Amino acid sequence: MLEELKEEVYQANMQLPALDLVTFTWGNVSGIDRSKGLFVIKPSGVDYKALKPEDMVVVNLDGEVVEGNLNPSSDTPTHAYLYKHFPNIGGITHTHSPWGVAFAAAKLDIPAVSTTHADTFYGDIPAVPALSEQEIAEGYELNTGKVIVKEFAQRNIDPDAIPAALVSQHGPFAWGATPAKSVYNAKVLEVSAEMAYHALQLTRNELHVPQYLLDKHYYRKHGAHAYYGQKE
Amino acid sequence: MLEELKEEVYQANMQLPALDLVTFTWGNVSGIDRSKGLFVIKPSGVDYKALKPEDMVVVNLDGEVVEGNLNPSSDTPTHAYLYKHFPNIGGITHTHSPWGVAFAAAKLDIPAVSTTHADTFYGDIPAVPALSEQEIAEGYELNTGKVIVKEFAQRNIDPDAIPAALVSQHGPFAWGATPAKSVYNAKVLEVSAEMAYHALQLTRNELHVPQYLLDKHYYRKHGAHAYYGQKE
Amino acid sequence: MLEELKEEVYQANMQLPALDLVTFTWGNVSGIDRSKGLFVIKPSGVDYKALKPEDMVVVNLDGEVVEGNLNPSSDTPTHAYLYKHFPNIGGITHTHSPWGVAFAAAKLDIPAVSTTHADTFYGDIPAVPALSEQEIAEGYELNTGKVIVKEFAQRNIDPDAIPAALVSQHGPFAWGATPAKSVYNAKVLEVSAEMAYHALQLTRNELHVPQYLLDKHYYRKHGAHAYYGQKE
Amino acid sequence: MLEELKEEVYQANMQLPALDLVTFTWGNVSGIDRSKGLFVIKPSGVDYKALKPEDMVVVNLDGEVVEGNLNPSSDTPTHAYLYKHFPNIGGITHTHSPWGVAFAAAKLDIPAVSTTHADTFYGDIPAVPALSEQEIAEGYELNTGKVIVKEFAQRNIDPDAIPAALVSQHGPFAWGATPAKSVYNAKVLEVSAEMAYHALQLTRNELHVPQYLLDKHYYRKHGAHAYYGQKE
Repeated sequence: MLEELKEEVYQANMQLPALDLVTFTWGNVSGIDRSKGLFVIKPSGVDYKALKPEDMVVVNLDGEVVEGNLNPSSDTPTHAYLYKHFPNIGGITHTHSPWGVAFAAAKLDIPAVSTTHADTFYGDIPAVPALSEQEIAEGYELNTGKVIVKEFAQRNIDPDAIPAALVSQHGPFAWGATPAKSVYNAKVLEVSAEMAYHALQLTRNELHVPQYLLDKHYYRKHGAHAYYGQKE
Repeated sequence: MLEELKEEVYQANMQLPALDLVTFTWGNVSGIDRSKGLFVIKPSGVDYKALKPEDMVVVNLDGEVVEGNLNPSSDTPTHAYLYKHFPNIGGITHTHSPWGVAFAAAKLDIPAVSTTHADTFYGDIPAVPALSEQEIAEGYELNTGKVIVKEFAQRNIDPDAIPAALVSQHGPFAWGATPAKSVYNAKVLEVSAEMAYHALQLTRNELHVPQYLLDKHYYRKHGAHAYYGQKE
Repeated sequence: MLEELKEEVYQANMQLPALDLVTFTWGNVSGIDRSKGLFVIKPSGVDYKALKPEDMVVVNLDGEVVEGNLNPSSDTPTHAYLYKHFPNIGGITHTHSPWGVAFAAAKLDIPAVSTTHADTFYGDIPAVPALSEQEIAEGYELNTGKVIVKEFAQRNIDPDAIPAALVSQHGPFAWGATPAKSVYNAKVLEVSAEMAYHALQLTRNELHVPQYLLDKHYYRKHGAHAYYGQKE
Repeated sequence: MLEELKEEVYQANMQLPALDLVTFTWGNVSGIDRSKGLFVIKPSGVDYKALKPEDMVVVNLDGEVVEGNLNPSSDTPTHAYLYKHFPNIGGITHTHSPWGVAFAAAKLDIPAVSTTHADTFYGDIPAVPALSEQEIAEGYELNTGKVIVKEFAQRNIDPDAIPAALVSQHGPFAWGATPAKSVYNAKVLEVSAEMAYHALQLTRNELHVPQYLLDKHYYRKHGAHAYYGQKE
């Protein structure tokens, strides 16, 4: 069942240690088959060195296991909620990468201060509010998805243009058109957080790049007039 | 004698360089056989590249060598004291990992500011007081164990719920149910210290996670209602 | 066509990941054949692991492709402009290396605070102004070259003595007598930025090295009286 | 000539990249044969990957080449001066390691704030004054040795107890009983600088360890009553 997607999701998961985005098992990638309404996700707490494509768990959009002998990632309800409400995304990555977590612990957006950030994220990466006591008690992982979607709606952020969020006191969630692109976005988030951290320590000046630079760099890589890279 | 435990302690020691937790020989792991009242510990000052399972030294709870041709770690009396007073622990790890030492040098607890910390430590990791002149003069390594146990008692901290301490001006000691779990906890301490350091530099706001988040994350992974990972 | 130069530029590009100067495809090196008025540059957005010498693109000084099946780096017009106006340089390297970008995002020169910097750069590495809305709209990459050349002229900086610039809000461009030397200079910039960052956090004292130290270290390695290294 | 010492100095030099203490060729190790009054040093500017034991240069205590086809390190007069004035040392290491250079650029001693530092250095590692214009003009590298020796004398520091210095605006010099021990000390300096930097950012409290802790840790590893490690 969904063998190609399992392989794709497996390969994307294996990029997390390759890109220095995980310690131990603290991360997971999923990918969705929109036509079937099913997604494939890493099993919970399995060591990356032991992980195999056939370990991937198939889940429906209510987070129920459809196929697989292992428990899916404990973050599965978060993934399910994001897939339901962000209709264009095909893959999701969650990590505890250290620079991203530092901003999440500080409850601060990662500000867009350079083109490295702007090439991938069309503005600041929002730190969504920490969950309340009630939100944690009643469906913690599902509510993690809800606070992300709610914050994007309230701030009027397009999740296809800013494909990541920091959950305050927790860490990054990133997404993209494919599982591999969600991992790419998780890495750009980490690098951008590192660069922004150091820039913020160097000066107290306002550092946001102007809107026209955001426009230039984002549209240089995205949309009909993109001219970065090779035609595919 | 205790050949299986020697192999287990050897493997746990070899995780220290693999997880970037040691420079040179600055770290050691031990593991206890509670039924025999004996523990096994790394020899003092031996290079990790030359270390072999049969080099491990067997010691009793008074820190006396029972078997082995090499001197045990100079920190052996600290390990012995912790095993005596923390009855549930099966392994102990000591390192000079740099983020942990930075907090120890600053004599500051590692504050619980994110779920990465809270998944393993049910609250701040305490910086126990630096040893006094007398404590250093009269049984330094034994007194290192005493200041840890005393501080946990005074602050009413459960060593099974917060399985690590920073000895001020020195560095981290971590423990756990097994030698491997004590190494795991030493790595989580290091990563948590790195994240907390950067969060503290980003803002002067109070950053501790609330008690209900500590409860949620700790009990998600520990105790009867744990649901992270696979059933064992 | 220019097969030797392609090999040289390919090898220089492969030094970027070897020296930890790039994430993903965010960097490029070019090299010029001054006698032919042509330069060779990395293709745009190609993964370093897949890169081959024959992928290098041959371009003229107007940035037009003369040979090659792939699109040249999107930064090609910047390279062309620098080659036109800095007549002694033979290679150019552009990276998004994190310490360099941190200073670029903060719009701060990398100050010359140690001999590590002074051995290669005869003074501060300038942060040239961020491009204006008009400069971005009308030929962004060409104008990136223009702001560098203009700032060097206005500050009266010799590009052979200070062979790099930070484009504010973007990142480093470095150059040198050969493609390999431009990569070397890009690495010295990154290391110097890291050292300067930490020195600036340690103290509020003025830290610039004096002019006579700049003279000593720069001329120890450059010019007729150089005595560092072996005679070539 | 001195083939064993050449091999020993070669091996010690190769530890510099292995321990992440050098970028490019920015470092050198020497070792002395006190009975012959000759020392062996790395050639200037030779890539570590190409270095061979027979490349080592034999020099006398006036810094004159006695054997070898390559130029000795440009820092040779500094080494010679230190050997002359610190009679117990057998090896010297110079690096531009980044944490050490950060303190050197800030002209700050590396303060003794933890046992990691105190196990090797019996007090703060001094930042010796930057050289004056005249000292640079008239025998720069020789005067580098002189400012180190002069500062140790003025502060009454025993170079066997604190076996390293930072030359302000330049970087670390470390020494020891053998070439290998000088490299070890250079690494401890770098790690201690990293830990001290972060501790200093975490708090404005005074962080020096007390004299009795210095005594305990230094004499635990050094002298007649040392008990760390194995008997040799």
